[in-house]
Amino acid sequence: MGEGFAGEVLGRFVAESCWEDMPSALRHEAKRSLLNNLGCGLGVAKDPAVTSALAVMRNFSGAPVATVIGQRVKLDPMAAAFVNAIACNLLDYDDTHLATVIHPTAPVAPALLALAEQRGFSGAAVLHAFLLGGEVECRIGNAVSPGHYARGWHITSTCGTFGAAAGCAKLLGLSAEQTWHALGIAASQAAGLVENLPTAAKNVGVGNAPRNGMLAALLAEQGYKAAPAAIEGPLGFAHATGDTLDLAQITEGLGTQWEIARNTYKPYPAGIVFHAVIDACLALREEVGAAPEVIASVTVAGDALLLARGDRAVNNERDARVSIHHSAALGLVRGRAGVADFEMPAVTDPMLASFRAKVRAVLDESLPRGAATVTLRLADGRDIQRTVVYPRGSFERPMSDAELEQKFRDNAAIGGFADRSEAGIAGVWGLGEAPDVSGLMRALA
Amino acid sequence: MGEGFAGEVLGRFVAESCWEDMPSALRHEAKRSLLNNLGCGLGVAKDPAVTSALAVMRNFSGAPVATVIGQRVKLDPMAAAFVNAIACNLLDYDDTHLATVIHPTAPVAPALLALAEQRGFSGAAVLHAFLLGGEVECRIGNAVSPGHYARGWHITSTCGTFGAAAGCAKLLGLSAEQTWHALGIAASQAAGLVENLPTAAKNVGVGNAPRNGMLAALLAEQGYKAAPAAIEGPLGFAHATGDTLDLAQITEGLGTQWEIARNTYKPYPAGIVFHAVIDACLALREEVGAAPEVIASVTVAGDALLLARGDRAVNNERDARVSIHHSAALGLVRGRAGVADFEMPAVTDPMLASFRAKVRAVLDESLPRGAATVTLRLADGRDIQRTVVYPRGSFERPMSDAELEQKFRDNAAIGGFADRSEAGIAGVWGLGEAPDVSGLMRALA
Repeated sequence: MGEGFAGEVLGRFVAESCWEDMPSALRHEAKRSLLNNLGCGLGVAKDPAVTSALAVMRNFSGAPVATVIGQRVKLDPMAAAFVNAIACNLLDYDDTHLATVIHPTAPVAPALLALAEQRGFSGAAVLHAFLLGGEVECRIGNAVSPGHYARGWHITSTCGTFGAAAGCAKLLGLSAEQTWHALGIAASQAAGLVENLPTAAKNVGVGNAPRNGMLAALLAEQGYKAAPAAIEGPLGFAHATGDTLDLAQITEGLGTQWEIARNTYKPYPAGIVFHAVIDACLALREEVGAAPEVIASVTVAGDALLLARGDRAVNNERDARVSIHHSAALGLVRGRAGVADFEMPAVTDPMLASFRAKVRAVLDESLPRGAATVTLRLADGRDIQRTVVYPRGSFERPMSDAELEQKFRDNAAIGGFADRSEAGIAGVWGLGEAPDVSGLMRALA
Repeated sequence: MGEGFAGEVLGRFVAESCWEDMPSALRHEAKRSLLNNLGCGLGVAKDPAVTSALAVMRNFSGAPVATVIGQRVKLDPMAAAFVNAIACNLLDYDDTHLATVIHPTAPVAPALLALAEQRGFSGAAVLHAFLLGGEVECRIGNAVSPGHYARGWHITSTCGTFGAAAGCAKLLGLSAEQTWHALGIAASQAAGLVENLPTAAKNVGVGNAPRNGMLAALLAEQGYKAAPAAIEGPLGFAHATGDTLDLAQITEGLGTQWEIARNTYKPYPAGIVFHAVIDACLALREEVGAAPEVIASVTVAGDALLLARGDRAVNNERDARVSIHHSAALGLVRGRAGVADFEMPAVTDPMLASFRAKVRAVLDESLPRGAATVTLRLADGRDIQRTVVYPRGSFERPMSDAELEQKFRDNAAIGGFADRSEAGIAGVWGLGEAPDVSGLMRALA
């Protein structure tokens, strides 16, 4: 993509990109990302974190032209994007760019859909802007990882602001230079802290990414400018937030190697490192049958990250989503790990609680990140074992389109929108040919 | 103020504070801060940076109940606070808390005035909330200084977000615990980069401080929570943004030693370290008269910061505001240093340009920060010298109320609002007794 400041190269890339040049696999991945993301939003439409955000934003919204997922009211695009991003990411059941642990879609897509609803942009324009925004977001994320997150920055919120700015700039038809400025303005708005992840304050960072990224693009459209090196300058975003930088990752291979193509979708609403544990336990249950009483004990082996994150007591829903013990119990006792299986009735279910006590976590440094080996000691003294290196939903073993459709249906049903599922699914798959997004958004309202 | 998390102590301090307990000097300082700040906003009401921000926000504003300074239209409180903060800080002619270089009023007061206009809060409630918000802002700033700014964080924008959240929490009558959460939510919204300071992207950070600080308080009112240690936790605001921390400064002496009482106001719209240069040159002009031709050369001595910031070529308005040479030329040639004296006609004025060439900057490490010694070599061979340690407007030599009134009048006249000056001045001085802020805001519309 040539030489220049990081924002300059990205601005040119975004402004000059043509939908016609997007490989069809990439276009399809954009739809898969949206399908996965919008279903997550439908599932939590009645959650207090969503309805409280909506209650605040209703008093600070211009003309109500943008759909709020699963709600009767509409808001202006900035306010709608705020609430929708919160909803779509709320349970961390959305997507993952594993190299950065960014959830790419929630900070970007809500801004694009809302802006498109206001201004009548086509479905293809939204998909294109999403790919570009997601690409910018993940590449800046790569450049500042892992020091950025380790220092306390919630990378989905911070890098998501850039992604939303880039995507909105594309939708608005900004020039390469205006897009460069939009990215620089986004740099002065990027925020969100890991310390706040266990609380609703996390949602505010995620919601602000599309809200403020959109503002960055709108201000750049009005002539607002930013520093040329707002991203990589000595007092710019990357140095201020990161300790170990690899700035070349922002631009190397841009337009030929797509980071957003590495997006993955979760079959289970649990921390991504627990997916191998669940998969191994589901497979072992196939062997031993639905008979947890024949299992004397369970040993889960994994790398240091798995143990650091997941070897914990389970007192609430949040614990459950990042627990080795709960993950194993669900796989072996219930034979499933859906949204309801991480909610309070499951946390306090005596059968799950007593089974969790049979589970022990041990370190196995030979296992790669994200892998797990589960060993069952049966009542008759036999041991049976299963290792999963690439769990369902990983890049190497992706969820199929049909599985993503079913996840959408399941989420819609949880939110009370089962009757909308097929229209929503059809709306996403048909988005590339839709003259505008109104059909899709009607299905989500 | 007792023990606890930083946000907990601050939340209790804000929630439990009584207007009746505020010392009268502090109440008066709140009015001085407002008078100084609002005048700055009037002066730049027609600046494109302000009108562009207004143009964007008009499309993303709820019920127009809050005044935008110097504009016919109103906006919702969040949008109005965004535009007003940009205006009041635009030229950096507003106030300075020297220890942190925070401009305390712009990120805080616009949120409070707008919220008060919407909900009918009294003038005293606004003044009280301003003192508390400003105090929180400067104390958090002290705790992360100087590493925070040195790392690239525009401290007015970042710490201003906390100040606005605290002030809005007080106005809204939030409990101590809710205020603690509001501060934690603010932590996930604090952003703004030094790299962007020479551009309009700086304004976005400043405008977001009251916009997002208000949002933090409104979300806390709705039950949103944050991490207990969002400010000082290992992955919280202070550690993420600062390298050298002194966290005790957040709470030590809280309620007895007021940081906001150390606020200062600028007599000249130039970088604060140039004020001593201007003062020394004005004094020397009294001696030699309005006859720059008798001055053969000028030597300005100052500390390393003065030289690092100010020894530069002057090509535009921004250069002029941080130039030793331009500051000296104004003092000696024009005998004044007002807003117009830093604009392009002054930059390109041949008499000033040729005089700037006579000025030389030298290091004098014996001088304290903010001080300057100016030596004139006259045409007849004589040297005359003047040292200024505490310039006009410094904490040690503050602008008088009458001077602040005159600054307000001058700014109002620059903005084309000379006819509003006396109503605005009276509105600020009478704010403590006003049942609401409508009279003051009418004078500023």
